[in-house]
Amino acid sequence: MCPPNCLHSICENASRRGLLKAGFGIGLAAVSAGLGLQPARAAAPAQEHRFSKVHDLTHTLFEGFPTFSGEKWFTVEKPVTWEKDKVNLHRWTLMEHTGTHMDAPLHFSENGMSVDMIDIADLVVPLAVIDIRERAASDPDAALTPDDIKAWEAVNGPLPEGCCVAMNSGWHALLDSPKFTGRDAEGKNHTPGFHAETAEFLIKERSVKGIAVDTLSLDRGLASSGDFPVHYQWLGSGRWGVEAIAGLDDLPAKGAMLVVAGPKVRGATGGPSRIIALV
Amino acid sequence: MCPPNCLHSICENASRRGLLKAGFGIGLAAVSAGLGLQPARAAAPAQEHRFSKVHDLTHTLFEGFPTFSGEKWFTVEKPVTWEKDKVNLHRWTLMEHTGTHMDAPLHFSENGMSVDMIDIADLVVPLAVIDIRERAASDPDAALTPDDIKAWEAVNGPLPEGCCVAMNSGWHALLDSPKFTGRDAEGKNHTPGFHAETAEFLIKERSVKGIAVDTLSLDRGLASSGDFPVHYQWLGSGRWGVEAIAGLDDLPAKGAMLVVAGPKVRGATGGPSRIIALV
Repeated sequence: MCPPNCLHSICENASRRGLLKAGFGIGLAAVSAGLGLQPARAAAPAQEHRFSKVHDLTHTLFEGFPTFSGEKWFTVEKPVTWEKDKVNLHRWTLMEHTGTHMDAPLHFSENGMSVDMIDIADLVVPLAVIDIRERAASDPDAALTPDDIKAWEAVNGPLPEGCCVAMNSGWHALLDSPKFTGRDAEGKNHTPGFHAETAEFLIKERSVKGIAVDTLSLDRGLASSGDFPVHYQWLGSGRWGVEAIAGLDDLPAKGAMLVVAGPKVRGATGGPSRIIALV
Repeated sequence: MCPPNCLHSICENASRRGLLKAGFGIGLAAVSAGLGLQPARAAAPAQEHRFSKVHDLTHTLFEGFPTFSGEKWFTVEKPVTWEKDKVNLHRWTLMEHTGTHMDAPLHFSENGMSVDMIDIADLVVPLAVIDIRERAASDPDAALTPDDIKAWEAVNGPLPEGCCVAMNSGWHALLDSPKFTGRDAEGKNHTPGFHAETAEFLIKERSVKGIAVDTLSLDRGLASSGDFPVHYQWLGSGRWGVEAIAGLDDLPAKGAMLVVAGPKVRGATGGPSRIIALV
């Protein structure tokens, strides 16, 4: 967890949860302040963003929405009805990771941030869309690799500072098909996802706040049927993820701002979210 | 439901749900098309919005968050834990109208739009903040009146086209106090809210998509302990509301864009929402 060249004693005295909550940048700022340095982040002027169109990147959630495990994870009851009460009001029971949803660091770590601990400024970020639809169409186990990132950068320039990298595998269009979970006879899923090497590359060599997939798992289905390497590495590093994102086909590869409107629920490991792009 | 001077036969032939779903403006456009007129809305170029700062206007939701009825409306269970499973994943049970949340038209109408039917473009709108904190501090039954709207316009100019009008009564700061619900010995609540005449004024004389309050009810507590006049009139007109909004003190009276990131749940009458302002 210690950034290169920092004072190990300061790092070791800071709790891991504290570092995760404050975010890596502010953790660095605290170290800088201890050394009498000016934290670069505080000095930077706020960047202006512009938009004229709003895109909804959220699937509608319903009873029977596909889940990674195949279990039913969302139920609606109607205890208050127009007919009986002249008011409508429903009760939901749900597992947090259903529908288009967020993964908070706490989902795959012992003490990582829950959704409510993530600064709202870290949930409104530039979006880079990586299109692997052609490869995924013929290979449901396709991975988004570091080479895909480099190919995107060759066309679009460096990944924007503090961005979200989203995989467009074409899976958002398969919601009504058995292919969406890709479950085989052995109970293993076959869906595209980030390669473990890509998570490591983005953590070590780029500035990325979140990753998003249009499938049910940040990991490829096969990997997440086993040891979830991307989930543990990415979320364990204090970063967030979005699963089952929709609507990426309509967005430019670069230039949109992503709004990850996750549920502000105390201690939540994630949850159904409204995901929006401003273009 | 018929706009002034329209052809009654056209209005009567259109279904109420259809008009509500399409929105009043598009309903008008359909009428105009029938008359061979050019709908003004379609010809308007997309307006550009700018922002450099993101504000979270959402209370953290937790078990025991105050509710209008006093019942417990949010429960968390932890069936999957780090200790047992090396993954954290919770189950929620909730009534839709808890925490900082949206009211969809369906909440107080027979066939109005559910949350998932509202166009995302109608949930990202200019925000007008009306400050009645001084009056509300000495009167928990204070109402936001048409005169308050006119006083705001005298300073800030006309309400922006398609805006949200938000009441800042100071109640967001009372979340931990019995004043937040203001429940008296007779079980009636005392909290500020919109006056029924204000709802009628905004529907008939201004272009407003939604209203928001920092209390638990669009209506004043006393009114909503009885016949809910604002709920029935406002939501019944096909417009939305936000209740228990937070953070309005930090916003300008005019100039912010509001993002009402409601839950995209099929048939939902409302639900916990992430409310964000872009300034």
